[in-house]
Amino acid sequence: MTADAPVPLHDDERTVVRRRPGRPRSAPKTAPDASTRDEILDAAARLFAQQGYEGTTTRQIAELVGIKQASLYYHFADKSSIVVALLDGTVSPSVSFSDWLRGIQAGPEVKLYALAAYDLDVILNDPWSMHELYRIPDVAAKEEESGRVELTVLQSRYLELARETARLGSTTPGALSVPESDLVLIFGLVESIVAQRYWGGLSDRAAYAATVPRGCLRLLGVPEQAIAGVAGEAGRLIASYPGAAPRR
Amino acid sequence: MTADAPVPLHDDERTVVRRRPGRPRSAPKTAPDASTRDEILDAAARLFAQQGYEGTTTRQIAELVGIKQASLYYHFADKSSIVVALLDGTVSPSVSFSDWLRGIQAGPEVKLYALAAYDLDVILNDPWSMHELYRIPDVAAKEEESGRVELTVLQSRYLELARETARLGSTTPGALSVPESDLVLIFGLVESIVAQRYWGGLSDRAAYAATVPRGCLRLLGVPEQAIAGVAGEAGRLIASYPGAAPRR
Repeated sequence: MTADAPVPLHDDERTVVRRRPGRPRSAPKTAPDASTRDEILDAAARLFAQQGYEGTTTRQIAELVGIKQASLYYHFADKSSIVVALLDGTVSPSVSFSDWLRGIQAGPEVKLYALAAYDLDVILNDPWSMHELYRIPDVAAKEEESGRVELTVLQSRYLELARETARLGSTTPGALSVPESDLVLIFGLVESIVAQRYWGGLSDRAAYAATVPRGCLRLLGVPEQAIAGVAGEAGRLIASYPGAAPRR
Repeated sequence: MTADAPVPLHDDERTVVRRRPGRPRSAPKTAPDASTRDEILDAAARLFAQQGYEGTTTRQIAELVGIKQASLYYHFADKSSIVVALLDGTVSPSVSFSDWLRGIQAGPEVKLYALAAYDLDVILNDPWSMHELYRIPDVAAKEEESGRVELTVLQSRYLELARETARLGSTTPGALSVPESDLVLIFGLVESIVAQRYWGGLSDRAAYAATVPRGCLRLLGVPEQAIAGVAGEAGRLIASYPGAAPRR
């Protein structure tokens, strides 16, 4: 990781807790409900990736977690609610972060860097490997049904900050403003990481987490000399965020 | 399309010719063999996207084309060869173009713009909707098996031109050089279009075809004032290419 990367990236990867299928818990459950919910999401993500959304039953998910199907229905009304929760989980934290950013006093270029860095931290540490899940056509269909409201909100927040950042550049003497049509590339660059099927090891992931926010600023004409300073400011902004850090 | 977009984009989309399954051709075949081969590829891409790679048989593909299974085997040894041909078809034309570029006298920024524009033309006019296909896990697995040699070559060509272009910038007084680690973003930006599942209409596609090459130059610190000129030069370069235009 380079020195100016504001977001610490951990190299612990979540793994699905594999209990023997269908085996009742041998000890009283001590973890809170939230943990069972997460275990269901972990198991479902794993099974969807392995055998497709249509090919997976809630019974199989319950068996992988080691709970009764009735317990699963305590947390999720149906299989479709599970996939919607999985999809939301990859976007909601970044939307909340962008909500918070709106009330903060900082330059748009700092906010944009911070949003990209935070969002990448969510994407790169996604415990449910959504970048795999998105490749399953029936999950993608489910996603389109649900309207992807959250993702549309996030996209508009990027666009808003990109527009403000580009506007800064356009007032610099000698600089030409970036055409409005090119502002979509900011979100594209961040989202391209979701699609990256060829991440090498974790060191590559950490590199992406720093290169992409820098790239966003470069795409908007922020001078190279200013980027390290913006990165530092964005790091402090993220550190002061009172909301939840991305789940790992 | 903006004035500086060098690559004409057509709005005719190929559609699979749907004959009645299993029905023998009613007239003698007049189209050359290449056409049957393409029809097989079209039909296979459609079926893979609809029902998965594993879930599709060569018999079903032959039926959709309206040929006998034996005729299919005249063109492809097995199902796996079909998917490899589909995957290669989205990359090979751009690799050939980049081969040709190597012998041409032009600035690296012009060659990079030309390669990105040509490649985007291939991607955006992909008759086999490979951006859909890539989402099918078993096709992705097949792709990994085949080593993706072509894509790796293309990626290294982008990196080579990005490095040379960034080097130009680093000699400009006052400009800082783009870190080597950030050069991967160029290929990422182009590839992000493959993953774009939310292309609007064709006008959006045409916009992407122009915005992405511009974005590549911006990421490498090419001054905004120079980009329109580079785009024009790249357009003339593409027009002089003696090789095949992307299939539509």
